[in-house]
Parts: sequence; structure tokens; C-alpha cells
Amino acid sequence: MKNIFIPGFLISTAKAHITAVNKEDIALIYSKIPAHVAATFTRNSIKAAPVKLTKRRIKLGFAQAIFINSGNANACTGKQGERDAKEITALIAKGLKIPKKYTLICSTGVIGELLPMEKIKKGIKELLMSLKPTGWENVAKAIMTTDTFPKVVFKKGRIGKKSFSLLGIAKGAGMIMPNMATMLAFFITDIAIEHSYLSNMFKDIVSQTFNRITVDGDTSTNDTALILANGYIGNEPLRKNHSIFEECLFETALELAKMIAKDGEGATKFITIEVHQAPSLKAAEKIAKTVANSILVKTALYGGEPNWGRIMAAIGRCGVAVNPNKIDIYLGNIPLVQAGAGNNKEDEAKKYLTHKEIIIKIFLRMGDKKATCYSCDLTPEYVKLNAYYRT
Amino acid sequence: MKNIFIPGFLISTAKAHITAVNKEDIALIYSKIPAHVAATFTRNSIKAAPVKLTKRRIKLGFAQAIFINSGNANACTGKQGERDAKEITALIAKGLKIPKKYTLICSTGVIGELLPMEKIKKGIKELLMSLKPTGWENVAKAIMTTDTFPKVVFKKGRIGKKSFSLLGIAKGAGMIMPNMATMLAFFITDIAIEHSYLSNMFKDIVSQTFNRITVDGDTSTNDTALILANGYIGNEPLRKNHSIFEECLFETALELAKMIAKDGEGATKFITIEVHQAPSLKAAEKIAKTVANSILVKTALYGGEPNWGRIMAAIGRCGVAVNPNKIDIYLGNIPLVQAGAGNNKEDEAKKYLTHKEIIIKIFLRMGDKKATCYSCDLTPEYVKLNAYYRT
Repeated sequence: MKNIFIPGFLISTAKAHITAVNKEDIALIYSKIPAHVAATFTRNSIKAAPVKLTKRRIKLGFAQAIFINSGNANACTGKQGERDAKEITALIAKGLKIPKKYTLICSTGVIGELLPMEKIKKGIKELLMSLKPTGWENVAKAIMTTDTFPKVVFKKGRIGKKSFSLLGIAKGAGMIMPNMATMLAFFITDIAIEHSYLSNMFKDIVSQTFNRITVDGDTSTNDTALILANGYIGNEPLRKNHSIFEECLFETALELAKMIAKDGEGATKFITIEVHQAPSLKAAEKIAKTVANSILVKTALYGGEPNWGRIMAAIGRCGVAVNPNKIDIYLGNIPLVQAGAGNNKEDEAKKYLTHKEIIIKIFLRMGDKKATCYSCDLTPEYVKLNAYYRT
Repeated sequence: MKNIFIPGFLISTAKAHITAVNKEDIALIYSKIPAHVAATFTRNSIKAAPVKLTKRRIKLGFAQAIFINSGNANACTGKQGERDAKEITALIAKGLKIPKKYTLICSTGVIGELLPMEKIKKGIKELLMSLKPTGWENVAKAIMTTDTFPKVVFKKGRIGKKSFSLLGIAKGAGMIMPNMATMLAFFITDIAIEHSYLSNMFKDIVSQTFNRITVDGDTSTNDTALILANGYIGNEPLRKNHSIFEECLFETALELAKMIAKDGEGATKFITIEVHQAPSLKAAEKIAKTVANSILVKTALYGGEPNWGRIMAAIGRCGVAVNPNKIDIYLGNIPLVQAGAGNNKEDEAKKYLTHKEIIIKIFLRMGDKKATCYSCDLTPEYVKLNAYYRT
């Protein structure tokens, strides 16, 4: 991972000391030439200042730099927060000699506090002086808040005779819930791709990956997933249905999304919930997300209890009309519930629940639609982490 | 409380040993004459066998007996579960020499296990032999699962020259969420009241009390609130808008609902969330419930952290379009957030959060509608309780 580089991109990281934690907390991603950009943002109606600014700027279709900070979300910070976000991008643009409008900003951390601008300005100077082609893992670390490990996925592929690189990095941990789920995810590639194709494909892929994970049902004010494609490899720009690149991007996004669920605050188990035989995709998603978010299900999984009644109760309360007498539930390959009734597989199921990765499969016998969600268990550790997050 | 009695009603409790816990776990409420009955039930589309049976029978408008058990919900138990519920009511009806159709049943506890019918039959014999006019607190105790205290409210009032009694008992603790919230609540009165008036008023009152509380966002398969009015005092039956009785019933229901929120599993704090100046009642309720259910808000309150950013994020994600720059948030009387920005009241707020009862007031400046929700904090104890509920 240390030697990853994507032609045409330079990066740097630094310590701005935004919080008391002594870690690198700001990062800069720079493309030597304007790159096509696409992004999706939180649907929370309260959006952080950097989200509003970046959302406006990516409409141009091009970007060249992204400044990212952890430790402070710059959300609910009013006009001053908006001025601060703009000022940061202006400093970056000036230092890199690129247009302000091509300069983006993403923030994550505590809501409701102004950015410590003097510290950040000093940090920006460092960022501008230390740009280099490698060190992506440091970027992944710099954007972490309560994540326990950096999330990096790197893939290479071929388009005709040219080989392309695709890098994804993300951070997650808390305030994670389907509806533009990850707090921050960045995809960097040297492929050339037509803007509207990139934009539509990216939205689709985000909805099938990041929007399918949940840690705690809380949607952040800062969620952003963003892709930069600078076309450095000089291929004929992709225009539609390019299965090799789409698959590569999908896999990268899915791997990152799963990492976020796995690294949910305090989590000890990674949970996959598959809903099969649903009457519609929407119904399948609704049921999968409701089960994934049920804190009674999540605590039972933490305790290793095959308490399937809680899964049934969650299925029943999500607003989809189901027939309980038709429902089968599997834990892995163990048929825990058949036709709505317990199947005396509790001992097997208990053993299965000692694993770190749990798959719950729900069969509704109402159709042929399917959806999968990713989640984690809810632990006393999660509660403690979030009870004393700021202290 | 020990001497509460409601003319015309007899009660009894017994140990059926449904679970390993050595406590009284079945109860019988009997009205010497057919009483008017009204009820509301869970909106979970998966309903327990006793809910389905009782729901059918109360349509007659009259009832004379309620059998209640804790320890086993008789939910997701298929045809056998339905036969068991019927058999129990048949035994009660036979013993009391009343019509089966006037005999109701409510269950609470683990989902997905068949009732231990032999034990329950033995218990029923005891119940039938030990009916007496007092001991309501024992009924409140017998229906408890993880509740830490019995929930009983008793009021007296006057209608003209006649005095009436109104008793409410309830159990809550887990799987509590607005949408017919309490698992079980019973109201017993000796007033005479016209059936359709009782029925409509009761629904209204439940929606403003039990449906405004949440512990964990999970709606049970067994929720039932039920009122019996036997008319023993011989008043002219109430027909409409009787403010004295309505207020008495509302207050009783609200007190019980608050007790349930206060006694949420593992809870250390009772939280009231008021949303003011909302554009509609629906918007006010949505925001209040989303804040009440946010596990990030609930954990922050447990930790005593005035992390208002989480309150803002919850307001923003619930689907109501709000203007964050207009929002004020108070903790008690402390103006924590004004016009969407922090107000440097953190020290005061931290001190306030050491209290056992917390009030969060949200002002939206978007209209004049108001809603209040009741909830509790989320603690490591909740997680532990629910991780090992069945062991």
C-alpha cells in the first residue's frame, strides 16, 4: 500500500492540531490537470458549510484539489463557517495556482464549533510545501476520527492496451446510516471518462454500496463521496456501460463500505443482512435496513443470542405488509426459522454467532426482489465512546 | 396503593413459572358484569396470537375478563399459538361462567416460543380460586418483564353526585417505540360510558400519551392498551366531551407513559423533548420522535455531554425541511443554541445534564404547532440487558 501512486495526482498531510489528539488531521489531494468530478452528498437537510460549498462547485464538472480535515465538521457554524470554508479553498487555490472554483473542501468531526483558522492556515502552508505522489495511507489516516483502521482499496485494470489505477479511501465509524452513508469517501483514478456517464454511474454505485450500510441510524450533516478522474492515461474517454471500469469502481466502493460497517464504533461483529423474495426492491431495502438498524437485533447479535423474534418484530414494523407464516430466516446456512416458526436450531445458531462475520438471510416468499445491507453489532463500548465523545 | 379497589372488579395473580424467574407471572382481571371495552393494538404487521384474538373479540364492545401473562409473548407461534390463546380464554370463561367472547388475553415476553400450557393451566386454576377486590399492585408486578418498578396510577373523580374510580396499570421496559408504544396498559373504571365515545376518546388519548414515548425505536408485536368501564356507579352513561373524565384518563395515561420511558431498560435519565413553532403537528411529532430515537443523542445524554450538534443532525435527517439558522435549542431553561449557532453555555449545560430529568426544547420559528415526546438515555446497561436477555 505504501507505494500506491496515481499518475497526475500529488498528496500531502499535516498536523493542524484541530483537536487535542496528536495526529495528522488535514490532507490535500491535488490533480496536476483539471479532473472530471462527480459526488453525492448527505440528504440531511442540515448541511455543513463545506458540503454546501463543494456541492456548488462540483456542478462545473471539473475539480483539481480537495482539502480535507478531521476533528471538526464545520457544521451548524453559520455565516462564519461558510466564510472559513471559502477562505481555506482560496488559500489552497492560491498556493497551487489553480482556480478557486476547482478547489473543494470536506470536513468531519464535532458539529457546532468554528474551525481553528489560525492553526489551519499554518497547516495549509505545510500541505502546500510537502506535496508528493505517494502516501495515500497517510491521507486515509488523516481523515479518520474514531475509526480504528485506515480504509484504503487500490485496484488496477486495463482498457484496451492502457492500464488504469483506481484508489478509494474512506472514513466512517459513527453517525453512519443509509442515506448517503459514509461520512467521507474519495475515489481517485487516472482514467478518462465522460462527465455525465461518470456522474450517473457514480450515483448508482454509491446507492448500492455506501447507502446500504448502517452503524447507528444517524445520518451525518457532512457525508460526501467524491470521485476525481483526470484522464492521465490518455484513453478514449469512456462514454457508457463500460463493465470493466464499473465493476472495478463498484468493488472498490463495496469493499470500503464494508470496512466502514466492520469498523463501526465499538463493533465486534460485521453483519450482512440479505432480504430475498421481496415483492419490490424498495420493500427489500426497507426490511433489510430496518433489521440492520434495530438496536434489539444489534444487541442480541453482540450477545450471541439467536433471538429471531427480534428480527421478526423488526420485519413487521417497517411498514411492508408481510405474512409471518411464510418467512424463513437463516443464520449463515442454519435454517433458524421456517414458515414463521422456530426450528430448534438454537444450539447450532449460538455456535455460529460466535463468529466475527454474521450473515442473516430472510426469505419472504412474496416475489423475486433482493437487497443486501451491511451493519455491525451494538456494544457497551459504542455507548461509552459516544457518551464521552468530546471529553 | 394497597387498598385500591374498583367496584365490580375482582383480580388475582399467580406463579405459572413460565420462565426460570421465580415471580408471579399470570394475572386475571374480572368484571362481575359485562363492561364496555375499547383498545388499541400494535401496528406491527406481525401480531402475536393473543393480539389477534383480543382484537377480534373487543369488536363486540363488551368484555368481562382479561388474562395476562408475562415471560412469553406467544408471538410467531403459528396455529398452535392461536389454539393456545383460545384454550386459555376458554378455561377462564368456563371457570368464571361467562361467555368466551367476553374473555380477552394479553401476553408479553420472548417471541417465538410456545406457551408452557400445562404450567399455565395449573396457574389458571389458582387464579380462579383466588379472586379478590384488592391487590392491583400485584397485577402490575405480575405483568412486568424487565421493568424495575410496577406502574400503577389511581385517580378518583366526581360526575354530578357520584364519585368514580379510574385505575391504570402498565408495563414497558424494552421494544418500546411510538406506534402503539407501551407493551401492555390496562385501564379499569366503574364509570358508565357510551361505547363509541369511549372508543374514540381512548384512541385519541393513547396517541397523545403512549404513542409519544420511545425507549429503543422497536415496536413490539404485542402492544396493547385496553380500557374496561363497567358502569358500576350507575351514572347516566357519558356520551361526549366529558372534560372531567377525559382529563382524568389523559392524566392517568400520561403518567403511565412517562413511567414507562423513565423505566426504559438500563435508563438513568428521563428525557422530555418538546418541539415548538413547527409548521404542522406531523412535522413537530416527526422531529420530536427522531431526536428521541437518535442513539447518538441518547448516548450523549447518558454521558452528560451537551453535544447539540447531534440534536441538529437528528432534526435535519428526519425529512422535515428546516432552516438551521432559525433553530433555537434549550436544555431546560439554558439557551444552548441560538439561531443555529452555539451559545457558549456548555458549562451550565453540563451541570444541568447531571439531573435525572432532562428537558430539551426545540424552537423552529416555522409555525405554531407543538409536540412532546418522552424518552430515556441509552446506556451500556441497556446493551448488556438486551445482549443476554434470554440467558
